[in-house]
Amino acid sequence: MQKKAVILLSGGLDSATVLAIASSQGYECHTISFNYGQRHKAELDFAADLSSSMGAKSHRVVNVDMGPIGGSALTDTRIDVPVSGVEDGDIPVTYVPARNTVFLSYALALAEVLKSDDLFIGVNAVDYSGYPDCRQEYIDAFEKMANLATKIGVEGHTLNIQTPLIALTKAQIIQMGTELGVDYSLTVSCYQADDLGRACGVCDSCRLRKQGFEDANIQDPTRYLPMTNP
Amino acid sequence: MQKKAVILLSGGLDSATVLAIASSQGYECHTISFNYGQRHKAELDFAADLSSSMGAKSHRVVNVDMGPIGGSALTDTRIDVPVSGVEDGDIPVTYVPARNTVFLSYALALAEVLKSDDLFIGVNAVDYSGYPDCRQEYIDAFEKMANLATKIGVEGHTLNIQTPLIALTKAQIIQMGTELGVDYSLTVSCYQADDLGRACGVCDSCRLRKQGFEDANIQDPTRYLPMTNP
Repeated sequence: MQKKAVILLSGGLDSATVLAIASSQGYECHTISFNYGQRHKAELDFAADLSSSMGAKSHRVVNVDMGPIGGSALTDTRIDVPVSGVEDGDIPVTYVPARNTVFLSYALALAEVLKSDDLFIGVNAVDYSGYPDCRQEYIDAFEKMANLATKIGVEGHTLNIQTPLIALTKAQIIQMGTELGVDYSLTVSCYQADDLGRACGVCDSCRLRKQGFEDANIQDPTRYLPMTNP
Repeated sequence: MQKKAVILLSGGLDSATVLAIASSQGYECHTISFNYGQRHKAELDFAADLSSSMGAKSHRVVNVDMGPIGGSALTDTRIDVPVSGVEDGDIPVTYVPARNTVFLSYALALAEVLKSDDLFIGVNAVDYSGYPDCRQEYIDAFEKMANLATKIGVEGHTLNIQTPLIALTKAQIIQMGTELGVDYSLTVSCYQADDLGRACGVCDSCRLRKQGFEDANIQDPTRYLPMTNP
């Protein structure tokens, strides 16, 4: 029987690459996306389309209610999204409290129900050094907890959390995805993309993505908003 | 400054006791409840009332979307709630996949936003030996992960997950809560309570609660549904 994998799919460049990697390894892929009140909701449509066009077996959207929690520029419209670049060592205001922990928890629940032993997430420690929950030691700790939390551990299986992008630069991710046939025009990374998924070109996420295509020497297929189109 | 604590409050007997314990230790208490599509929604009203009557500083209800995940008698009406007693060693069908992990993740996010270093949860390893996520080793692993996941760990604080009930019997919990002044008539434990919070008297949760009052030799203030009132 084909091995099942749960893939966290945001609709962005990284997670699309992860889906391509899991597919190329022969997994039956089940994607999961999160509607967490993010400003950039276009990514949810992109995620659904990516899942389908890349041959995933199922796709789910889970509503994550961060409203009562607050505390991030991505979910609280009273906090501005910064456009001045990522500062080393600081945790950006675009950091959503415990976001990956909440997302991984739902993905874990799904893995348990589907009886999947593999869970893929596109965290990256190179570009997101300011996010504590993008570090491998965090993922390792989550994996250990997950195996104690669920029937999976009790029934003698082991849940593996796979982070194929963790040590790659954006350019390396783009190169790998391009080799695997990912169409990056179908992905959106911008923190404040419009309803059509067009990117602002100036937020941290846009700058990292843009630089990645430049460094990889691959043409950037991103659709930018007219005003900010370079 | 008064130390803040985040308390997971279900509206049941155990978490009400935990709130009383945290209050008695001088914490400024912030309660959090979860609407996860449970059949027994009356507990959400009970939780809000308990939080207020027991002097918590704030109360939040987070909508947890387990619908796309499925897999439990508590959230899937196609699976019957068992009334025949808990079997040793088996994981009951009332187990919700990764539930405590999902709940603790939201509570962790709240702790991070409130800058609280203490998180209280009423897990109990005595009565719920069949639930993997009620064991202390699971809680310890979550705590370790949590300190790697968030700003809390990065900023040199330590998040402590307190489980004051973990080794207590139901009778001991009831005795402790009664000494702390908890009014258990304001709590609801039944897996299939009606809209008024009246208990069925026959589900696993009702049976454990009933037995607890008997063993503690304290009068059971639970309001049972007329049909099943003994």
